Amino acid sequence: MVKTSIPILNVLADSLDAENVLTDTDSISAYQTATFITSQQVLAVLKPGDATQVQACVKVANQHKTPIYPISGGKNWGLGSRVPVQNNCIILDLSRLNRILDFNEKLAYITVEPGVTFQQVYEFLRQQNSNLFLSVIGGSPDASLIGNLLERGDGIGPYGERATHVCGFEVILPTGEFIHTGFGRFANASATPVSRWGVGPASEGLFTQSNLGIVTKMTFWLRPLPQFFQVFTCSIPDVAYLSGLLDTIQPLMLQEIIQGNCCSVWNSYKVFARQGRYPWKIMDGKTPLHLKELKRFERWFASGAIYSASREQGLAQRQIIEQALAGKVEELVFADDDSNPELREDNLYLGVPSNQNVKSTYWRKKSPIPAQLDPDRDRCGTLWLCLVFPFDGVVISPAVETIEVIIKQYQFEPNLAFNCNSGRSIHLFIAIMFDREVAGEDEKAMSCHDELLQMLTQAGHIPYRLGIQSMNSLPPAQDDYGFFLRTLKQALDPNDILAPGRYDFKNDWK
Amino acid sequence: MVKTSIPILNVLADSLDAENVLTDTDSISAYQTATFITSQQVLAVLKPGDATQVQACVKVANQHKTPIYPISGGKNWGLGSRVPVQNNCIILDLSRLNRILDFNEKLAYITVEPGVTFQQVYEFLRQQNSNLFLSVIGGSPDASLIGNLLERGDGIGPYGERATHVCGFEVILPTGEFIHTGFGRFANASATPVSRWGVGPASEGLFTQSNLGIVTKMTFWLRPLPQFFQVFTCSIPDVAYLSGLLDTIQPLMLQEIIQGNCCSVWNSYKVFARQGRYPWKIMDGKTPLHLKELKRFERWFASGAIYSASREQGLAQRQIIEQALAGKVEELVFADDDSNPELREDNLYLGVPSNQNVKSTYWRKKSPIPAQLDPDRDRCGTLWLCLVFPFDGVVISPAVETIEVIIKQYQFEPNLAFNCNSGRSIHLFIAIMFDREVAGEDEKAMSCHDELLQMLTQAGHIPYRLGIQSMNSLPPAQDDYGFFLRTLKQALDPNDILAPGRYDFKNDWK
Repeated sequence: MVKTSIPILNVLADSLDAENVLTDTDSISAYQTATFITSQQVLAVLKPGDATQVQACVKVANQHKTPIYPISGGKNWGLGSRVPVQNNCIILDLSRLNRILDFNEKLAYITVEPGVTFQQVYEFLRQQNSNLFLSVIGGSPDASLIGNLLERGDGIGPYGERATHVCGFEVILPTGEFIHTGFGRFANASATPVSRWGVGPASEGLFTQSNLGIVTKMTFWLRPLPQFFQVFTCSIPDVAYLSGLLDTIQPLMLQEIIQGNCCSVWNSYKVFARQGRYPWKIMDGKTPLHLKELKRFERWFASGAIYSASREQGLAQRQIIEQALAGKVEELVFADDDSNPELREDNLYLGVPSNQNVKSTYWRKKSPIPAQLDPDRDRCGTLWLCLVFPFDGVVISPAVETIEVIIKQYQFEPNLAFNCNSGRSIHLFIAIMFDREVAGEDEKAMSCHDELLQMLTQAGHIPYRLGIQSMNSLPPAQDDYGFFLRTLKQALDPNDILAPGRYDFKNDWK
Repeated sequence: MVKTSIPILNVLADSLDAENVLTDTDSISAYQTATFITSQQVLAVLKPGDATQVQACVKVANQHKTPIYPISGGKNWGLGSRVPVQNNCIILDLSRLNRILDFNEKLAYITVEPGVTFQQVYEFLRQQNSNLFLSVIGGSPDASLIGNLLERGDGIGPYGERATHVCGFEVILPTGEFIHTGFGRFANASATPVSRWGVGPASEGLFTQSNLGIVTKMTFWLRPLPQFFQVFTCSIPDVAYLSGLLDTIQPLMLQEIIQGNCCSVWNSYKVFARQGRYPWKIMDGKTPLHLKELKRFERWFASGAIYSASREQGLAQRQIIEQALAGKVEELVFADDDSNPELREDNLYLGVPSNQNVKSTYWRKKSPIPAQLDPDRDRCGTLWLCLVFPFDGVVISPAVETIEVIIKQYQFEPNLAFNCNSGRSIHLFIAIMFDREVAGEDEKAMSCHDELLQMLTQAGHIPYRLGIQSMNSLPPAQDDYGFFLRTLKQALDPNDILAPGRYDFKNDWK
């Protein structure tokens, strides 16, 4: 029995075991910590064990009009980690709901709960000797599939636009009712795990980047491993060549010679941060590292993967890509898994999760990287900005140059990476990396972030995903979107108890 | 000035010219006519000229609490044509909103109003000498892109799942407010025509198969024409081989050797109906045509298209398909556009719309097919059932055999066609074709339809799209979906004035 001054917790203790109601200072403090400065207080952390317990928590939260903030894996590093958008929420940590509920090799899907991680699915598929793989994220192997999906995070490989490769959500509404998207509402509907749309209004999208429901189950589609697999890499000396590089890749993607989410473009700083630590020795302990000031090129690197059903098909694809890139890039290299079987091992493009990118959050730390990575605990400073652009060099290049100028003014490294989503759009990830232990860096990094966000949105480039600090930082809607969202939220969550402030754009409400 | 006994029309006459308010018996009668029996009365037909006039109509409808029923092209043949789901609606015919608003060859999109037709876009792209094509429907060239999309109709070719290849909806809510999906709510957002999701809850899906808004603008993505194009055809003697055929195609689609929506499987009756008229002469004026009773095979035919970026790539794809189908099918033939340049002409797979399928609605008519096809006017009897199955022969075959038995019992031909949507799901189209001039056929066809629907839903096979007569014929929801939909509808449309009964599943409301 939990004894506390917060009455709701006494009621919840009827539904949850005491060990799953956390109120001690250490736990609360950990959940209140992100990779950047925050001030939100957390009332308590609940760890329900199944969807029925989640439902019970939601009902009690309504009775007590106390806001709850669900998290899945809590690995939203760079965008807020486990910290709620608003003050005085109770965190609903869903990591104990970690069952794989269904798997089908022929129809290539897997159905999971919110606590299931990328590493867990990877190991499960290996145990099954499956010929299928799940599109993974660049981030932590311990991240939740559902958590990442609900943020509409990017995946790597042909199913990388993961939001179009999922279906069958089970959702608990803010007032405690259960619903299912697609055909899931019909008993024994044969198409539930294979059809996103169902019949009638398609509601899936409403529960992504939203505070309109808690998703407790989802089906992810899996892709067969390719029969013949190739990767390629190339580079350009400088940002001056970026526009040309992007405009060479774009038609290849539009024609599906390179598939969506199968090509990325990184600058030197991103490559350095992923490969290792800040070069403290060379830099004699000084920051920032600005290559041009050291009279070095700031190279950009492109890499991609080609998934083929036969060697002949793969070599034909390679030939088209080679011809298109000829004379436009340097150091163009192809590798295939016939000649290099190790290409299939530890490859993000084939669904093998990796800690490599998480390590980069330790970029500006001077202490050794620990075996158990935890950027929140280790006070790694990381702020992400996630942008989407039309895939057009003329639009993108000037924005990138301005981004670099702003970041350098703040004495950080311009860590930039593109994911080529399709022939039409491209995602840009800006990572501001710092050491939270260095006095003033928290504030400086946030100022840098804010200036970038303001510059970009004024130029019409809107983030496609927001950190918890930016939920009210977007330009005002020019239409009645605020009225629409207010109407939905007030109808579905009359007590505003579910994740208030999270993607609800209350600034626009009217 | 319109003078009528319906007070709302006098008010509306301030917003619309008299010629765009139809109340005469002939017009009303035409709009009340579908390709099957209906009893709904229509109060009047309004033809607004732009979105502002649509908004004015919506506001007046709310003031007078008179339901309005928007249609785009009105070519929803086999599923209800222009007839509202409920009695005593005013039809809002949006066909005058027929402008192409934006087009971009590089980023491959086109933005249109609801009155824009497949034929119109096809001709526009030819005028522009565009290298792009729009995925078309099997139905009328004069159908509306937006109307078909909002029904989540199938397209043909790589962008055939059209609902994942659109973005940027402009929507008028049932109370008259304007909203935009994706990034459209931000002034000058650069990614509006290239990103579906925007930032925050994704609401697009809510406005498909729904009565929650009127879509007045939408962006459709276009695909580049392939550099090398092939089609293939093959057949099997009988339904007994269907399961094997489907299970051979399924892995080819899962591995993306054949792309989604690039392969279809038709039975003989579907082929006959598309190619011509009922064989009255051979059958000596009698119906039905049942091939087995004539000691003929009931063959099934598969056909597909292969889109390649080079001849080498295409031939490699062909080889894989040939090897997979070898020994499983008869009459396998490939053709390519190098050897047969005419393959690119009049090809639905390359975005050329065709009237051929509409002609098949005249299957049981004895009068000549007119130059201007109009199945409603010509009393062509057509009832469609649109099913989705998991792509698994073991699941599909028994359902098909039962479907055939039921249709034959009612003395119709089992006109069946599959569209292979992906490696996971497959759509089955059942067409019941009859002559509405023949006494009793209207009732018999509807009974046949109802028995099929009941058998299929009991077996767990739920339609993915409904005719106006079936909006309350689905099994009850096993969850709180009815509560959810009621909450949304009552919040967004408190007067229930927008297309009442259309995909709102009021039977489930609680």
